[in-house]
Amino acid sequence: VNYAGPIADGEFDLRAQPVRTNRSTQHWWVELLQNEQVAATATGVFASRRQTWSSVEARFPEVPQAATLPRYPNVGRAQWTQCYDMRFVQGEMQFSAPAPPPQDSASTLWIRDEPPRPLDFVSLLAISDAFFPRIFVRRPLWTPIGTVSFTTYFHADATTLDAAGDAAVLGVARAHQFRNGYFDQSAEVWAATGALLATSHQIVYYKE
Amino acid sequence: VNYAGPIADGEFDLRAQPVRTNRSTQHWWVELLQNEQVAATATGVFASRRQTWSSVEARFPEVPQAATLPRYPNVGRAQWTQCYDMRFVQGEMQFSAPAPPPQDSASTLWIRDEPPRPLDFVSLLAISDAFFPRIFVRRPLWTPIGTVSFTTYFHADATTLDAAGDAAVLGVARAHQFRNGYFDQSAEVWAATGALLATSHQIVYYKE
Repeated sequence: VNYAGPIADGEFDLRAQPVRTNRSTQHWWVELLQNEQVAATATGVFASRRQTWSSVEARFPEVPQAATLPRYPNVGRAQWTQCYDMRFVQGEMQFSAPAPPPQDSASTLWIRDEPPRPLDFVSLLAISDAFFPRIFVRRPLWTPIGTVSFTTYFHADATTLDAAGDAAVLGVARAHQFRNGYFDQSAEVWAATGALLATSHQIVYYKE
Repeated sequence: VNYAGPIADGEFDLRAQPVRTNRSTQHWWVELLQNEQVAATATGVFASRRQTWSSVEARFPEVPQAATLPRYPNVGRAQWTQCYDMRFVQGEMQFSAPAPPPQDSASTLWIRDEPPRPLDFVSLLAISDAFFPRIFVRRPLWTPIGTVSFTTYFHADATTLDAAGDAAVLGVARAHQFRNGYFDQSAEVWAATGALLATSHQIVYYKE
């Protein structure tokens, strides 16, 4: 997904067209229009998965169970935070300056839809983008930000999602670099069972 | 970049159109056509960079200098490998089974255009995709593979590229998961000076 301009609350049109499809894969091109202008574009790649040799290389971090952690207060936060139950292991966002300030922007947290519902690809996609902007974790300063480009790779199939049910999933997010108005973010989303569900990557604008 | 079908050696047409542009950013949509079929699509996002607070969070790995390492033999390898001087610190691809087999697919290598030329955005983009497919590093077996979707984020500006000159850059690549016909790859490209030049992410099909 690429954000080409601001999207306002309100109606929008989606234009979706297949670019090329065959028996096992589909490529789609999607435009989001608002006020007759393209506000966002997206490409979608869909593929059937056949059983093969498989291996997880990324590691599920050692973390306390979600139930043992306090729920992150979302009162006074952005509207979308009301849609999630977040429990931070590390890297909370805080605008009251901590002492000493954090040395990196890494976060690890349990996250679950609020109200709870069984995980599907739509909710997994949303959760893969439900991390606070890394710059807020790194610096306790309000800074205007906007995602520019965003990619999620689904590593899970429907069976894996079914097994995840409505339990909290574990999110891990970090930045590689902040530089002259742009920073990146890489994230992993894990099922509590240890299955890697998705990885996501984005580049974000910030204004100073 | 999304690969929608096989691309043959030979001529192709490119259709590029601006989706939305303003003073500081441009969004483009590009299609590669061959035999009147879309073989690949791409979105390009361009932006001017203004000086801001900046910080590198990823770490330049501790590695020996490129000159102290042997050059990777590319005789008998794929044609594109002739375009690079590669010197592996870790994670060489090998089809003669090592003992014991590698437990992960991580690679760290110095890489330089062959013949040498000053780094620019085109060569940096190519280098960010010049890693051997992770499955070949993980398993000493020939497996048909094909990149499906590929994203590079440039963290460097022209000044940083100029400073990198024609010296070898350091590439680091790893997979998070191989599963049922698809694996991902995340990579970093660093200048020898310690500047982070680019990060890239891709998802790759493999056939068994």
